[in-house]
Amino acid sequence: MAFSVAVAGASGYAGGELLRLLAGHPEFEVRTVTANSNAGHPLIDVQPHLRSLAHLTLVDTTPETLSGHEVVFLALPHGKSGELTAHLNADTLVVDCGADHRLQSEEDWAAFYGGDYYGAWAYGVPELPTGSGRLRDLLRSARRIAAPGCNASTVALALAPGIRAGVIDETDLVAVLAVGPSGAGKSLKLPNLASEILGSANPYAVGGTHRHIPEIQQSLRFAGAENPTISFTPIIVPMARGILSTATARLVPGTSAAAVRAAWEDTYADEPFVHVLPPGHFPRTADVLGANTALIGLAVDEAAGRVVTITAVDNLVKGTAGAALQSANIALGLPQTLGLTTNGVAP
Amino acid sequence: MAFSVAVAGASGYAGGELLRLLAGHPEFEVRTVTANSNAGHPLIDVQPHLRSLAHLTLVDTTPETLSGHEVVFLALPHGKSGELTAHLNADTLVVDCGADHRLQSEEDWAAFYGGDYYGAWAYGVPELPTGSGRLRDLLRSARRIAAPGCNASTVALALAPGIRAGVIDETDLVAVLAVGPSGAGKSLKLPNLASEILGSANPYAVGGTHRHIPEIQQSLRFAGAENPTISFTPIIVPMARGILSTATARLVPGTSAAAVRAAWEDTYADEPFVHVLPPGHFPRTADVLGANTALIGLAVDEAAGRVVTITAVDNLVKGTAGAALQSANIALGLPQTLGLTTNGVAP
Amino acid sequence: MAFSVAVAGASGYAGGELLRLLAGHPEFEVRTVTANSNAGHPLIDVQPHLRSLAHLTLVDTTPETLSGHEVVFLALPHGKSGELTAHLNADTLVVDCGADHRLQSEEDWAAFYGGDYYGAWAYGVPELPTGSGRLRDLLRSARRIAAPGCNASTVALALAPGIRAGVIDETDLVAVLAVGPSGAGKSLKLPNLASEILGSANPYAVGGTHRHIPEIQQSLRFAGAENPTISFTPIIVPMARGILSTATARLVPGTSAAAVRAAWEDTYADEPFVHVLPPGHFPRTADVLGANTALIGLAVDEAAGRVVTITAVDNLVKGTAGAALQSANIALGLPQTLGLTTNGVAP
Amino acid sequence: MAFSVAVAGASGYAGGELLRLLAGHPEFEVRTVTANSNAGHPLIDVQPHLRSLAHLTLVDTTPETLSGHEVVFLALPHGKSGELTAHLNADTLVVDCGADHRLQSEEDWAAFYGGDYYGAWAYGVPELPTGSGRLRDLLRSARRIAAPGCNASTVALALAPGIRAGVIDETDLVAVLAVGPSGAGKSLKLPNLASEILGSANPYAVGGTHRHIPEIQQSLRFAGAENPTISFTPIIVPMARGILSTATARLVPGTSAAAVRAAWEDTYADEPFVHVLPPGHFPRTADVLGANTALIGLAVDEAAGRVVTITAVDNLVKGTAGAALQSANIALGLPQTLGLTTNGVAP
Repeated sequence: MAFSVAVAGASGYAGGELLRLLAGHPEFEVRTVTANSNAGHPLIDVQPHLRSLAHLTLVDTTPETLSGHEVVFLALPHGKSGELTAHLNADTLVVDCGADHRLQSEEDWAAFYGGDYYGAWAYGVPELPTGSGRLRDLLRSARRIAAPGCNASTVALALAPGIRAGVIDETDLVAVLAVGPSGAGKSLKLPNLASEILGSANPYAVGGTHRHIPEIQQSLRFAGAENPTISFTPIIVPMARGILSTATARLVPGTSAAAVRAAWEDTYADEPFVHVLPPGHFPRTADVLGANTALIGLAVDEAAGRVVTITAVDNLVKGTAGAALQSANIALGLPQTLGLTTNGVAP
Repeated sequence: MAFSVAVAGASGYAGGELLRLLAGHPEFEVRTVTANSNAGHPLIDVQPHLRSLAHLTLVDTTPETLSGHEVVFLALPHGKSGELTAHLNADTLVVDCGADHRLQSEEDWAAFYGGDYYGAWAYGVPELPTGSGRLRDLLRSARRIAAPGCNASTVALALAPGIRAGVIDETDLVAVLAVGPSGAGKSLKLPNLASEILGSANPYAVGGTHRHIPEIQQSLRFAGAENPTISFTPIIVPMARGILSTATARLVPGTSAAAVRAAWEDTYADEPFVHVLPPGHFPRTADVLGANTALIGLAVDEAAGRVVTITAVDNLVKGTAGAALQSANIALGLPQTLGLTTNGVAP
Repeated sequence: MAFSVAVAGASGYAGGELLRLLAGHPEFEVRTVTANSNAGHPLIDVQPHLRSLAHLTLVDTTPETLSGHEVVFLALPHGKSGELTAHLNADTLVVDCGADHRLQSEEDWAAFYGGDYYGAWAYGVPELPTGSGRLRDLLRSARRIAAPGCNASTVALALAPGIRAGVIDETDLVAVLAVGPSGAGKSLKLPNLASEILGSANPYAVGGTHRHIPEIQQSLRFAGAENPTISFTPIIVPMARGILSTATARLVPGTSAAAVRAAWEDTYADEPFVHVLPPGHFPRTADVLGANTALIGLAVDEAAGRVVTITAVDNLVKGTAGAALQSANIALGLPQTLGLTTNGVAP
Repeated sequence: MAFSVAVAGASGYAGGELLRLLAGHPEFEVRTVTANSNAGHPLIDVQPHLRSLAHLTLVDTTPETLSGHEVVFLALPHGKSGELTAHLNADTLVVDCGADHRLQSEEDWAAFYGGDYYGAWAYGVPELPTGSGRLRDLLRSARRIAAPGCNASTVALALAPGIRAGVIDETDLVAVLAVGPSGAGKSLKLPNLASEILGSANPYAVGGTHRHIPEIQQSLRFAGAENPTISFTPIIVPMARGILSTATARLVPGTSAAAVRAAWEDTYADEPFVHVLPPGHFPRTADVLGANTALIGLAVDEAAGRVVTITAVDNLVKGTAGAALQSANIALGLPQTLGLTTNGVAP
């Protein structure tokens, strides 16, 4: 008997990806899909790629339409989840794909987002190491889960092993990400137009202003950092989805290349969705398109004294909807891999 | 009376771009175009976008076909220029777009390229600061010029002002570049196929192995560095041409943001082709497509303690053919801007 | 108990897509993967997106390595299947994704392909109408199946309903296809390079020379045409996969728009993988990326006197590997939808 | 002494391209640039690729700001030019890049555009054949010129030679165009978002509804057609700019392939910007990127009984701004090629 599911924000890209994954999940049944301006329309008119869900019609996003389901996924703009979830039953599993419940620091929330602060939920990156285990442990009994920011979780997964093992300098981290524009959603702004992005690489949020920075720092603190700092620069490139993160860190002097590799491989040895590639191998985003996989390539640049990690993630899957689904699986006692694939759609 | 010009390697991307620029140059007349396997064919069959040069036919690349011109541009694979140029008249201006004559260190050459070493020529990045002036000064009387590597010159232009002013730590440099595949030329290798690159971001030469690293270090030494080290990672993204470099450096403690900005603005204040954008502005590669311009956006990330530079360059123009042409203008006593534009083709 | 499967040509794009689909199929177990120059390497080195098949190693493509499986899929270059399959057991289900066994006319084979002719097999487009039913009927007991050409099946599905119903003129058909380069495979030729394709639309095989033309004509004869002729032009556009076919036909005078719509809707009313969209709706290739779906939009242009069909297909799925798998399902008595999805990966 | 120029609508894509071309034109000096919501901002903030025009500031679009110039280019949304131009001096050369003054038939205007009809101006496709010559003849003394629609002029140039020579059937024309999204301007609509267009081919205005259809018919009547009909389908593909038109027509029975080729070659033999390629050669849009060239490839498909033309145009240059500039050159008695190039930016 499948769990009954509602998806709020079903007309957006994250909502659409949630639905694509849920449609292939054997233990979830999508009963309700909600939207804002598109309420009243058939889902298929707004998400024409979701043929198997052609029977669904979008309804308004309200506590009433969302109530009565065992699982509610929220894929709403930032600032919209907090008020809504107060009205949902405490026993309902609620997974928020927005930022509203990610940050444990109200100060960080105020500095990078602003507006009302609704508190942090269990953070939906199961593989992230903590002092005593993995974040997965906190998800097992959770009924409120915050799915991660796509860029934040990618960089955190990339660097956490080095922090955990004490082989990199937490104050000398640099991450540059090539990212597809779908992370910006369907926002009708000039920089999101195809003509602006095709044939060009476009930076944004340069110089320490990106909202995912405190989220990365929080994750690295989970892994053992005290006061990590990171230079973080995202570059929009002409691919619809995908993140390729180049995250480098200064090597703690005296650390061997073997110790570095061991740190990463040990951290993710048992993880089905995070793979450290063999020496000399580095991932492409095409390798993870549509998959819930994070692939990490690792090199030690002796001359520069730095560890270099290359991490490929599908921002809509492992970065958002897949992370949400994997976390929901864990919270509900299902196999965490259910309804998710490790195989990318390439080429 | 125009200078007579030969272009060797006219069937490749760099050669084609040289010809496109030369076709619009009022003081150069292309008389000879050479190729290897395409010799004997009309140029227009191989470079169908160069309609105004439809009268030219490709001939073999030999000392004989190249002799008798006032200017010879070489756009040959690495290792092919050295032997050839020994046979050219010493009075002929020879501009090599390959790597053969870029590196002053035979040791670096052996470590990163290998094969015979033919010595360094005047380096064709006129704007690069030196202790006493600019590299331009060395180009004025040169008859042998090495056009730069596209990635190397982009990163060097981005970071040299900070080195020159002593406001960044030369041992803590990190550069990640989003680059188009045209830099790899027409090489028939699997990673260059469209199906491999479309919809994906693909790293290569990760971990300190890229051949442009010693060239960057050499340029930074021109600017005053002693023993600079840099972590350098290029990422192929789905745009035919363009480089967007994110180059960051640890700020020397105590340096003000104003001092940082002054370092960059002072360095390029008089340069027609290198522009430092106002605070808060960052370039896109589309802004420089087809132009000989390098646009630099600059930020100081106080929290991370780093300077962040974003630099956009067209790898085939300012990165290669435009640099070659600009350098030739200087060597011949022509206005350096002749035949070059600062305006990009966007969108 | 799953069927044992071998895939020949597992290192190419079609072979990779077969494996991606097979990895998610509950009744198939891939035991053997073969290649040519890549034999001896782990599959994951060549197809790094297929993480769940990391245990497989490529072996040589020989009758011996392929024997002993219940199902053999061939994804070999044209001309390579014919000789090989003569050595396979007659009881083995063999599905060829190449062209060798598609054409019933040896004359067509000689004119468009040349080389040895090995005869036609059951044609793997189950939905194509025939005088008495569907091609599916011929697949039920087949042990030799020819998967279709991607362009050919797309155009045939688009136009067959009009031929079947007699509402379009079989001598006045025009199809123009926007196609991704993955259809050309991993062939190392200049026109397949990313730099040639990014930012450009490139025609090929213009003027009636494309090899899929006789295959289209054959399919339309299945549907009732006598001597159909078609102007067929493929255009390579910068997307890795996908076909968007615009196929138009002169309307038989006196035919109402309602009769046209009825012809298409009736033909595919019961098909799970071919959908005729409502009036005013037209598909995008993103809607079918990774899916086994063909989406058809239909309009009648009264002023021009033509029916216009817009059909979106993923060339590697419904156009090749999905068609192969769907046909194998049918031949083996499995539900035809097993292991296949109707939902695309968008955006 | 250069002509003084104003450009209205300078913040859009067409306006930006006009400015890029004007910046390189030796006889035009841009004095005024106007916009709507961007008035008051430096041009460089809105068009960051136009470095050489960094001294200009956008002002409001009014009769007052546009008056006092010898040439006014309008790049305004449809419906905005008509009222404005009534206030401009009759001696001023006004070139409208919008649709307001293209159609000679008020009935067509009402059917395809609607709103006030302001009458037709001289049509800015100089090469189009007329009964007695070329449209160029009407431009020589014109002071009001309507630049063409990009799709319309591309298809008209492709098919007019066959109409003129009587070798194709004017009632059996089919055109399918792969087009970049820049033709849609900076309109903030969902279908224009990068995420919608990257990796996908998207049709629009299917079934005879596109506004350029009457404009094509009008052009073909100039060339001698009586009542031409055309099936016209544009497909948005993931390239910022460019049009690749596949326009086919039924061959008049008994026409030889040589007669077809002669019709096209004769028509454009003396044209600097329209080239008919040799047999077997077909253009790519990359070949004309940034150029004012229309390249036409031609084939006769004997089996299908159709002429197939493949035409590549840069929608923003030969399709819009270049056509406007070329027409202005003619109207002012300047060489028509001034400030325009035939060389594309490739790759």
